Order: sequence, then structure tokens, then C-alpha cells
Amino acid sequence: MPQKKICIIGAGLCGSLLATRLAQRGLNVDVYEKRPDLRRVEIDAGRSINLALSDRGFKALRMIGAEEEVRKHVIPMYGRMIHPLEGENSLYRYSGRERDFINSVSRPGLNAFLLNKADDYEDVDLYFNTACTQVNLDTGEVELRKRGEGRVTKKYDIVIGTDGAGSVVRQAFSRASNRIRFNFSQKFLDTGYKELTIPPGTHASFLIEKNALHIWPRDGFMKIALPNLDGSFTVTLFAPFDGENSFSSLDSDEKVRSFFDRQFPDTKDIMPDLIRDWHENPSSSLGTIKCWPWQYEGRFLIMGDAAHAIVPFYGQGMNCALEDCYVFDQMIEEFGDDWNSILKAYDDRRKPSADAIADLAEDNFYEMRDATADPVFNRKRRIELRLEQEDPSYYSKYSLVTFKEDLPYEKAMKQGRAQNEVLMELARNVENPDALSTEVVKQKLREALPEYFG
Amino acid sequence: MPQKKICIIGAGLCGSLLATRLAQRGLNVDVYEKRPDLRRVEIDAGRSINLALSDRGFKALRMIGAEEEVRKHVIPMYGRMIHPLEGENSLYRYSGRERDFINSVSRPGLNAFLLNKADDYEDVDLYFNTACTQVNLDTGEVELRKRGEGRVTKKYDIVIGTDGAGSVVRQAFSRASNRIRFNFSQKFLDTGYKELTIPPGTHASFLIEKNALHIWPRDGFMKIALPNLDGSFTVTLFAPFDGENSFSSLDSDEKVRSFFDRQFPDTKDIMPDLIRDWHENPSSSLGTIKCWPWQYEGRFLIMGDAAHAIVPFYGQGMNCALEDCYVFDQMIEEFGDDWNSILKAYDDRRKPSADAIADLAEDNFYEMRDATADPVFNRKRRIELRLEQEDPSYYSKYSLVTFKEDLPYEKAMKQGRAQNEVLMELARNVENPDALSTEVVKQKLREALPEYFG
Repeated sequence: MPQKKICIIGAGLCGSLLATRLAQRGLNVDVYEKRPDLRRVEIDAGRSINLALSDRGFKALRMIGAEEEVRKHVIPMYGRMIHPLEGENSLYRYSGRERDFINSVSRPGLNAFLLNKADDYEDVDLYFNTACTQVNLDTGEVELRKRGEGRVTKKYDIVIGTDGAGSVVRQAFSRASNRIRFNFSQKFLDTGYKELTIPPGTHASFLIEKNALHIWPRDGFMKIALPNLDGSFTVTLFAPFDGENSFSSLDSDEKVRSFFDRQFPDTKDIMPDLIRDWHENPSSSLGTIKCWPWQYEGRFLIMGDAAHAIVPFYGQGMNCALEDCYVFDQMIEEFGDDWNSILKAYDDRRKPSADAIADLAEDNFYEMRDATADPVFNRKRRIELRLEQEDPSYYSKYSLVTFKEDLPYEKAMKQGRAQNEVLMELARNVENPDALSTEVVKQKLREALPEYFG
Repeated sequence: MPQKKICIIGAGLCGSLLATRLAQRGLNVDVYEKRPDLRRVEIDAGRSINLALSDRGFKALRMIGAEEEVRKHVIPMYGRMIHPLEGENSLYRYSGRERDFINSVSRPGLNAFLLNKADDYEDVDLYFNTACTQVNLDTGEVELRKRGEGRVTKKYDIVIGTDGAGSVVRQAFSRASNRIRFNFSQKFLDTGYKELTIPPGTHASFLIEKNALHIWPRDGFMKIALPNLDGSFTVTLFAPFDGENSFSSLDSDEKVRSFFDRQFPDTKDIMPDLIRDWHENPSSSLGTIKCWPWQYEGRFLIMGDAAHAIVPFYGQGMNCALEDCYVFDQMIEEFGDDWNSILKAYDDRRKPSADAIADLAEDNFYEMRDATADPVFNRKRRIELRLEQEDPSYYSKYSLVTFKEDLPYEKAMKQGRAQNEVLMELARNVENPDALSTEVVKQKLREALPEYFG
């Protein structure tokens, strides 16, 4: 049987990892990327330039033999540094287990690394500045337009769209939606985000704690910061578009400055570029895209953000996209060169996971925004925090999702939610959570959830 | 203040009713319709050509003074004629109230009637064969292409899309979705439909009961039939696309014929065109479209199926679209020439109603498909049927939705669901529903739901 002609649309994190893996399996792949080669041109200014890489992402990098190299270029974040409006900052470790931490990584840096990996294989051809403008679902023809040149059409056996939230391959599915019964939903939050910066100190020093994810939780909005290798921090303000303390209410330099001075006094003196950043960087929207099916006729497939764009509140968007490649590779392992089965099985097995992480990420937004004002929730959090510090066998919902790399998201969600209910019930009936012994809490969990704690 | 320049994209039922009403209010409207004038050319062959018009639709027709005229051209259907596979047919009246019935109406007939109405007003200009190809949300320019001619651009103050489930105006919202945070969802059923026919008998006689909506409920599929003025019936087969008794399993004339003979023996001899219809008419998909917001900047609006396409299982798609115009007119009454407020208020007030009827219609699909096999559900149905026949003040969920024309859909849904829960509970605990006196049932409802029955 002649080898399948495969093309990948989009050379982002998911596309470049997938191309590498397919090449390792001896497959020949053409990759088209509408943007320039980011190893040669600086792009993406003002758009989410660092991300939290965690165990599922590393699992996928391990698959191509790249875990150790990547680990050299990340900054471990061992916990959340909470900056309250008043009082001392506190560092909350992700768990009592030493191996449980997440890692700040540069998105363009990781992407460049993965493109280099893909370039190591003769079987991968990377075409930059080449936009896919149309996909013909009947013939497998993709229409390509190289910047400054005309359109050409090429035909492939397999077309995989890893072209992000605005995916052209997904649009082809949408256009044929009556015929292929393509279910699709796109939902936006009323909250948006803007990227800002804390520059490095002298000699590339870090002006706030380096090895933490910084959070300034406020009422209805929040600020976060992740460290970069050069000593700077990428800061993100999450705020509603309209109403009080919103992007639209901050309509003058003076208002922006006084809002930041008042709400984030401890970074007042280390964000000198605030006003410049404010104007240069867009206030971007945050949305969840779900759709189904992801494949059509065993020939066309969408993966990563193209199939399931999620909000960033679980730090799992990139990890999920990388894990997509891992699961897809498992299907190749299972079905060999039966691509029809590979695509269909991937579709079936991966969909519940993507739905789960989308829901978890959205829940976490509301939890971070609203639940922190709820005394029961705060007591529950303290009970669980102590439990996880004192008992290494206990995984909170966050830890199940983030650190249990072999547990599918949907199972992590199910167990995490069940645990939360038990702990919330406990927190509801206790005045002082610190008076509750860890043994009592564990006993409750064993009784209520023998399937997880039996 | 100079009058607003208004354009309506789409001259279907919703667009032509709206144009008429706006003209009655002294407004000047241009209407663009991509298809030919259906009063001159026969179109739409094989696509749902009759519909059930009920009280909400008549309310909207009354608004333009057209109720009585339309009533002359419809066929009242007083109840559901159930055709079981074995045993006698039974007619179930919609309620014990004489005024509660629905009406079979020809879609092109009603559309032609409404176009004539619109044509009565000098202030309405109808342009047929003229597709809107693009809407510019910044400028209010619409790009129009008349068949056989080039593209022209016209600018309007208000652009209203009543251009159906594939709305071009909604597509403009979708394309700007990040900027305007346009939430959108499209969901398909695994079941599709195909239109078939029972032709008239001699002298335009009706070969099955004229004044009923005929239903052949089966396991996982069903057939329905609505009467036409010429003595024919439009028949629709609803069946899954795949699996047992599905469109894809019926892949030869012989299989189609034997399926119909076996499943619908009582129409075996009165559907002579079955095989021809089967080939000529498509197997179409059924989906629900929800989106939000429906308006942008007080200038652009979508209405009818363009904003909320629903599945047909409540017989409310058309009625809802016509009621949209009624509610929109109320907003004009309230806000005068403040179009910004009109569009926003319409958006806010109408959205819950559209969501409710979409959910009701989907629920009803599953109810018709699955619940009829549930003995508790069947007992509940008998209890409620008797209640509604014996007590004219009682409205079932179906009756609240269909006959209480002033009760918004969302309120009908809420009350209907609450009643159903009470009646299901009763049905669960009773062996013989006929032994239950209506007085006992009413007492239960009064106790459980004093807000509705107090």
C-alpha cells in the first residue's frame, strides 16, 4: 500500500509536535503555516507569550524524546503567590509532593524548539507564509496562498488542521455543517484580558519571587504574572469589558494608573511601562469553542485549539493540545496504517477529555472570581490544602488535572468534583477548619467515595 | 430627525410580515430576497411545504389586520390522529376547549399572501433575485448581487436579517465574533427527515381524516402527515440517518417499499409516488441554532430562524418567527424612534423566549421518540388528557405553549415542566390512571403548585 500523503495546516505547538512525531513514525508530512517562520521574525507581540507547561505537556514532549531539553528552558513555579490587597503575600505550594510543580515557558521559544525538531526530519516539509484558504472535503484538495504569490491547489489523503481557534479546516466543516451535521458552539466570557509587563531588574534579576505563579485576586477582576528567563514577568490583567473596574471604564491614562496604584500597590514601582503596554496591547476576548465531530470521512481532522479552544484559567490549553498529539499517536500505534480507524478512534476517545478540560477551565474562572468570597469555600480550601500537604496520596481536583498525567481529563474532573462535594459538605458543618484532623477528613472521603479512597 | 433608512434581508414569512408592519408605522423599507418572487415562480419543491399555524402566529397576523383572511386558507386540525402499528386509530383532541386547535397552512401560500400585503405599501420596495453577500458592521453597508448583474453596495441605518437558518447577517456577526463576543451554537439531531406525499383522492377528496395532524409513532422513527387545501397530505418521515430503520439502511427501492408496507400498512395503497418522492426529495438534517447577541450597536439585528432555528417537534418555528415581529413591534411602540433602545430591548426581552421554545422543541423530539415507551409517562399522559378534557381551566404544557398566546414561551415552559413533574409523580404511584379522579389530580396540583393553581 502506498504511503498516505499527509498535510498539517498550522505549525504552532500542536502542529509542529505532530509533524515531528509522524516523521518519527516514518511518515511524510507537509506543514503549512500562514505566518512567517518565528525563528527568523519576531511576531506575536502583546499576545500571550508565556504559558504554564505541566505534566501532560511533558508527557507529549517525552514521546518525541524532547522532555529533558525543554526542562532546561523553563522556570519551575512551585506554587501560587497570592498578593492580597492588604496584608502579607503567601505562597501556597501546589501540593506537599516535591514533584508537583508547573513551569513557565515561552510560547515562541517552545514553538521554535519544536520547529527545529521537525526540521531534523527529511520527511517534514515546512512551508511558512503560506495560508490555507480552503479545504475541499470531497476531494482532499487544499487551496494554499503563499504571501506575494498566487493560489495553488494540492491534494492530500489526510488533512489535519492544527490551525488554532480560527481554524480554516474547521470552517470547512462549518460550511458543510448541514451535510456532515457539524455541531459547533462558541461562548465568550464577559471578562477579557490584556498583557502587561514587569521588566527585569538589574543584571536580569527577578523583581518578585521567581519560582511562583503570582496572583492578585480582586473582586471581579484579577492580575497574574509568570516569570520569563530574562528576569521579566508577563503580567495579565483579567477584567470585565464593561461595568465597574472594566476595560471600558479605564478610558484614560490617569484612570489606568490610579486603578493599578490602588488595586496593586506592591507593583506600583516595578511596572514602568504600564501605560505604553496598555495602549499597545489589545484587550482580548476569552472564549470556549466546542465542536463535533472533529473528523470527516477518516480523511480530515482538527486538533488542538482548532477543535477545542478553552479559557486559560486552568493553565491547560497548551498541555491539552500537546496531549492531543500523544493520544493521536496511541491511535496510530493501535491501528497501524488504517487511517480511517485512527481518525475515528481519536475522535471518540479524545472528545470527552477536551469537553472536560473546557468545562473545568470555565468553572475555574467563576471559582476564582466568585467563590473566593464564600466563607464555606474558603474553609474547604483550607481543609484540602492541609490534607494535600500532609497526605501525599491525596490529589485535589487541581492536582488530578495538572499532575496525574495518565488520568484522562474527564476522569480527573469526575473524581475532583466528587471530592469537592464531600469537602464542601464538611466545610459547611465546621466553624474552624483547622480544628478538623486530617484523619477525620480522610475517613469522610473513604466513607463517601470508596471508589477513589477505598 | 430624518427617517431611518431600513433594510430587511430575506423576504420569507418573518421578513415580509415585518416589512408590512414597519410600513404600517410609516417607515420606509427595502427588502432583499435572494430567491425569485415565489408568486411568479414555483420553488421549494420537496422542502417543508406546509406548517402548523397556531395562536401566536395568528396574534402576529392580527397585528397587521390579516388574521381573518388567513383563516380562510388554512385547514383546522383539532387533534392528533394516532396510527398505531396494530389496532385502531384514535383521535386525541388538543384539549376540551373548542377554540384550541392548530391549522395546516401552505408555507409558499402564506408567504405569497404576506408579500402581497407588503406590496400594498408604497414604502416597501421588494427586490427579488438579489442576494446579500456581505454586511459591513462598521459602516452599515450591505453588498448586494442581483442575479446576472454585478455587485452593488448600499448603506442603511438599520439592517435586519430575516434570512433564515443560513443567515448572511448572522455570518457577519460570526466573522466579527471575537470583537463583538458573539456566542453561537449549532447542534444537530442524529435524526433527519424526508418529505413525501399522499395525493388527493378523486374530486380533491381527502384520503385520510382531513382535520387532524396524523402521527404514526414507531420505535425510533415516525411519520406524520398534514392536510393541504387540494386534498393532498404532506407526509414527513423522521428517521435516524444511520443504524436500524435509518435513511442509510433504506438503500434500495425494494427496502423502502417493504419498510413502508410493514411499518405503515394503512397508507400502503395511498402513497403511489413513494419511490419517486424518496429519490427526488433530500434527507435533510434537523438542527438547533442559538446565538447571542442578536443585535449589534443598535443598528444590526437578526430575527426569526436567522437568530434561532429550532427543530420542528413543537410546531412552533414559524409561529415563533411571526411572534418575533409582534414583540419587535411592541418595542417600537415603547421606544418610538429610538432605534438603539428598540433593538437592545427586543434582544433582551425576546432571547429567553427563543431559548425556551428551542429547548421545548428538542425535548419533544426525545419525548416522542423515547418516552412513549415508558409506562409511567403513558399513565401521566392519560391522567393529563382527561384533566384537560374535563377541566377547561387546565392547560397542559403543549396547550400553554400552543394556545396561551400571551404567555411568553419561557413562562409556558416553566409552568409546563412544573406541572409535568407533579403529574409524573402521581403516575409513578398509581396503577390505573383512570381510577384517579380529576378532583384528586387538581388537588395535588393546587398543593404542589399554588403559584399556578392557587
